[in-house]
Amino acid sequence: MLKIMIALGSVFATQQIFAQSSAPLASVQDLQLSLNAVWVVLGGILVFFMQAGFALIESGSVRSKNTINVLMKNYMDACIGGLVFWLVGFGLMFGVNTTGWFGWSHFASNQLDDWHWTLMFFQMMFAATATTIASGAMAERIHFVAYVVSACVVSGLIYPIFGSWAWGSMFEGEGWLKSLGFIDFAGSTVVHSIGGWVALAGIVVLGPRLGRFTRDGKAHHLPGHNMPLIALGGFILWLAWFGFNAASTVEANVRIGKIALNTHLAACAGAVMYMILALLRGKAILIRNTINASLGGLVAITAGCATMSPIFAVVSGLVAGILVTFVPLLMEKMKLDDVVDAVTVHGVCGVWGTLAAGLFLENNMFDSTVLAVQMIGVIVAFMWGFGIALIMFFILHKVLGGLRVSTQHEQRGLDYTEHAELSYPEFQKEVTFETESLNKRH
Amino acid sequence: MLKIMIALGSVFATQQIFAQSSAPLASVQDLQLSLNAVWVVLGGILVFFMQAGFALIESGSVRSKNTINVLMKNYMDACIGGLVFWLVGFGLMFGVNTTGWFGWSHFASNQLDDWHWTLMFFQMMFAATATTIASGAMAERIHFVAYVVSACVVSGLIYPIFGSWAWGSMFEGEGWLKSLGFIDFAGSTVVHSIGGWVALAGIVVLGPRLGRFTRDGKAHHLPGHNMPLIALGGFILWLAWFGFNAASTVEANVRIGKIALNTHLAACAGAVMYMILALLRGKAILIRNTINASLGGLVAITAGCATMSPIFAVVSGLVAGILVTFVPLLMEKMKLDDVVDAVTVHGVCGVWGTLAAGLFLENNMFDSTVLAVQMIGVIVAFMWGFGIALIMFFILHKVLGGLRVSTQHEQRGLDYTEHAELSYPEFQKEVTFETESLNKRH
Amino acid sequence: MLKIMIALGSVFATQQIFAQSSAPLASVQDLQLSLNAVWVVLGGILVFFMQAGFALIESGSVRSKNTINVLMKNYMDACIGGLVFWLVGFGLMFGVNTTGWFGWSHFASNQLDDWHWTLMFFQMMFAATATTIASGAMAERIHFVAYVVSACVVSGLIYPIFGSWAWGSMFEGEGWLKSLGFIDFAGSTVVHSIGGWVALAGIVVLGPRLGRFTRDGKAHHLPGHNMPLIALGGFILWLAWFGFNAASTVEANVRIGKIALNTHLAACAGAVMYMILALLRGKAILIRNTINASLGGLVAITAGCATMSPIFAVVSGLVAGILVTFVPLLMEKMKLDDVVDAVTVHGVCGVWGTLAAGLFLENNMFDSTVLAVQMIGVIVAFMWGFGIALIMFFILHKVLGGLRVSTQHEQRGLDYTEHAELSYPEFQKEVTFETESLNKRH
Repeated sequence: MLKIMIALGSVFATQQIFAQSSAPLASVQDLQLSLNAVWVVLGGILVFFMQAGFALIESGSVRSKNTINVLMKNYMDACIGGLVFWLVGFGLMFGVNTTGWFGWSHFASNQLDDWHWTLMFFQMMFAATATTIASGAMAERIHFVAYVVSACVVSGLIYPIFGSWAWGSMFEGEGWLKSLGFIDFAGSTVVHSIGGWVALAGIVVLGPRLGRFTRDGKAHHLPGHNMPLIALGGFILWLAWFGFNAASTVEANVRIGKIALNTHLAACAGAVMYMILALLRGKAILIRNTINASLGGLVAITAGCATMSPIFAVVSGLVAGILVTFVPLLMEKMKLDDVVDAVTVHGVCGVWGTLAAGLFLENNMFDSTVLAVQMIGVIVAFMWGFGIALIMFFILHKVLGGLRVSTQHEQRGLDYTEHAELSYPEFQKEVTFETESLNKRH
Repeated sequence: MLKIMIALGSVFATQQIFAQSSAPLASVQDLQLSLNAVWVVLGGILVFFMQAGFALIESGSVRSKNTINVLMKNYMDACIGGLVFWLVGFGLMFGVNTTGWFGWSHFASNQLDDWHWTLMFFQMMFAATATTIASGAMAERIHFVAYVVSACVVSGLIYPIFGSWAWGSMFEGEGWLKSLGFIDFAGSTVVHSIGGWVALAGIVVLGPRLGRFTRDGKAHHLPGHNMPLIALGGFILWLAWFGFNAASTVEANVRIGKIALNTHLAACAGAVMYMILALLRGKAILIRNTINASLGGLVAITAGCATMSPIFAVVSGLVAGILVTFVPLLMEKMKLDDVVDAVTVHGVCGVWGTLAAGLFLENNMFDSTVLAVQMIGVIVAFMWGFGIALIMFFILHKVLGGLRVSTQHEQRGLDYTEHAELSYPEFQKEVTFETESLNKRH
Repeated sequence: MLKIMIALGSVFATQQIFAQSSAPLASVQDLQLSLNAVWVVLGGILVFFMQAGFALIESGSVRSKNTINVLMKNYMDACIGGLVFWLVGFGLMFGVNTTGWFGWSHFASNQLDDWHWTLMFFQMMFAATATTIASGAMAERIHFVAYVVSACVVSGLIYPIFGSWAWGSMFEGEGWLKSLGFIDFAGSTVVHSIGGWVALAGIVVLGPRLGRFTRDGKAHHLPGHNMPLIALGGFILWLAWFGFNAASTVEANVRIGKIALNTHLAACAGAVMYMILALLRGKAILIRNTINASLGGLVAITAGCATMSPIFAVVSGLVAGILVTFVPLLMEKMKLDDVVDAVTVHGVCGVWGTLAAGLFLENNMFDSTVLAVQMIGVIVAFMWGFGIALIMFFILHKVLGGLRVSTQHEQRGLDYTEHAELSYPEFQKEVTFETESLNKRH
């Protein structure tokens, strides 16, 4: 018995401290695979961190009475995005896809080779990112459990089905959009536009927050409660985006430097353009808009970061800065209440980025056939993402007892009504008498 | 003279911009070593970041008057964990170990080969992690200097001695637990349970915070002051855990993808299980418990992440979610005041993870001899970690002038009494008249 | 037409899921290059994250009325550092340098090989770091637009010109300081001292904040508003420093482990030395000073991290801890108001680190000729960095309508006067009546 245990121990038991000396000589191909795994796992780790970036930007952008609710939505998005994508999404998106319309294999996978586990880890984080984009837009008024259900649908159905068209399959067959030659390297459309259109459907069904638009039609700004959270969230998203874009090579090679550089330049250009426009227009340079402009630049370079020269990365970012400046004014005109401008940053800049990837395609710029395919992808993404999400939110709203919390609950704040907690119990007003009653629900 | 300087310059002086063109052709083995170094250094960097995660979770979980005290304990844990582990811990844990009971060489190393420097860097971060686990449990009532002394003992003695049993040595000899075939890939027991049992000893000796339990035996929740800090801390710990687990291969290979995936799925499962249980029990879904449940899942997959298929990673996480739901209720019944539920998350889930690693061992599931060794490791970890820490805290309490601050200081808050600072001087009450007197102590 | 599209698609369109199976067999040299790219891109990503660290430390160290202003300066530093360095800085620093005094090629590069894109990405982040060092020192009193102009000059002229002396060129020619054999592996002088001396020039021209020094010459501490931000900023900077130092090999090899270890030990030693000194002097152990002491240790190891054995990394850090303890007292005596002690941490510790790199040079310790060159570099850095920045700030102050905001604006806070926003609108006093008027400027 002891012998067996010792044998087991030497294989499995501990960190293999001496790996480098005892390992058999690896081949060049093995090494390339190991290096690819390091790069893709690192990319997945960074993309995971996007959830923290979204959580901070969104929670800082709401009033303090809704902070926990926003944080919880983002935290659960990571969890649901992981489990549901493993259960269903991966199979739909990357499973054997004979029709070109969806995959159908590898659900709840338990037996795969190591390289495909690595890819699944990476792709899982993209699903969670697409899912969480909508959370901020719909903040301060959506039921927590209804939101969780919608997150399951986005990460298990809406995102992976569209993803199968543009990126599938890993095993057999090819998505129809991919067959056309649709260019979306890291997901301006697949991840960001889809997320943005889900957000748009959500805010259409939910309606604006109380007090956002007064009866005479005037818009009223409801200021976020914590600007350092927003700034840190912006930095974290930017950081994570290097993994999002550069690791989408799913192969380690020297091209990643240019991808990272393009990613960075586009973000810089977005924020600088916003700043210049604000100065020219005599407006204050607002921190959330500055950050959104850099994020818009990041979304805009996501599709074309691998196939564009740096000057066009800068152009892509500059245009995103213009979009982030003006599109929210249009949204406000249309009485659409997007708490974090997710529709603009992810939806609209995703469209621009997808077109830019076609327009500025290295060695084949301004090709009208390329552009036509890009247009098809953009339009189909809107129809699918907005359409299905609209149906989903409508069903949640009408059938399952309400997407939106009651007026009383919205006024009181969702932290109290949905989670029985307070985000800053010492700093928020009128708290003392409530903590007793809160504890009873714990 | 100038000649010598130029010669030196060309070797040492600057970032070697042209490395790739001037370097001699590397062999495949050199490359594997370089790649391993990249992976292990990256892992160490991520594990370092755990300190930030702990600092945020713990500081957000206390009342604002103790914020700085908590942050300072975590910050100094990183510093002490580094220096003391270099001075003493590394030699005890990984030095030449002829008896199987501790290493005895390589103290304050100054001459090692580059690969062992790399490993020391990585292991150093694990020591600091094990050390800092206890800090949150004992928050809001422990003397800062006494805590610092205890951190030296944990990172220089308690952790490395147990570590030498399970993971030693790097040079010669083998720890006795390792010889038995004990499976603890990345440290469910070695790092987390040890940290958890030290925390348990600390809170036993310290006693509960003022007001935590009333005279009639009722427990009273003392709410943490800043929920966004807790959420961000949770995301950072989760992020860092990918380095903790996947880099514990200490070798770059394609298996790391599955390890990362297992790590992620277990965390997701823990949080989702907690949420489902809360819904079923009609309880509010609390943010700190949600995060703790995901961390419990992470602890539970740490031992077996490399030797388990994904479905069992999910199971490991689900069980952790149950443990994090119910064990704190038991702790409360026993009048044990663990501010951040560190004993549950790290101690108890560490036990579960170590057993799960045995139960779900790929190709050899539910083997009773494997399980017996795992049980031995778990029991010995408790006896050693809890036992020695109890003695240590008892000595600090009785001999060295008190582990616990005075009642007046506890009421006033440790930021003021221990550090002469205030964490949010503009937002905390009754501050104005004090800042003058604080400055005198600066 | 469809054929072309399909052909395009197969080359560019999507994440190359099957890269590992379809890729042609790479050579060992290709692999080394790919691995180098992974390492350098990762390093650049980490160095980027320094901006977040600076933003948090600096915003936590000011009063809440100036939070947004500080965050915005740091955010725009990243953006400007990127764009301006691409446009001008890279060419001046690393372009063809026939005279040894500056480069002159590769401005606004659009055609480079992939490896040089990678290096540009990495170096771009260093430029932004050097630029942002000054922002904290000058906080709470500088005009936002004037600051932005100064940031352009630092990242486009002051930093790259000095950088060309010590690190240039990538293409042809060599900087004069590099030719002498100046040792500054990752930039104690090139990045940190230059940044510190720019900061010094800024605070000399700006003068101290209102209330910092009373008429009778007494110094008055103006406490920062948010300590958790400072602690998290410290952790993030420390994390990022591993990329800063260890990736400055610009080559992946096994030496990076020792560099990371040296980096860590120096940081630990700085903080521990500060703590011991505070205990010996009977002073409170302040959180910002503790963090600054570890950052001082990091600056001090930056020049010599690759050419020093660990014991001397510890010594470098310990001395930095002493410097961070006492130099700020000297600054206060001289009525210099450095809000975050940037001059001490980056300028003075940068000098020490550069000298330490010479003193403790492995295999050639305490060589007087080496030390002489280090002294030359240190002195020249001061003359260039302080001198040019003094002229720049003087011009901004006298010619372009004022570097410093008006007394009324300074009292009201720069968030309101410069950005028309409030950082914590729910928690700051006297806010309600103002939000209406703020919105008008949006």
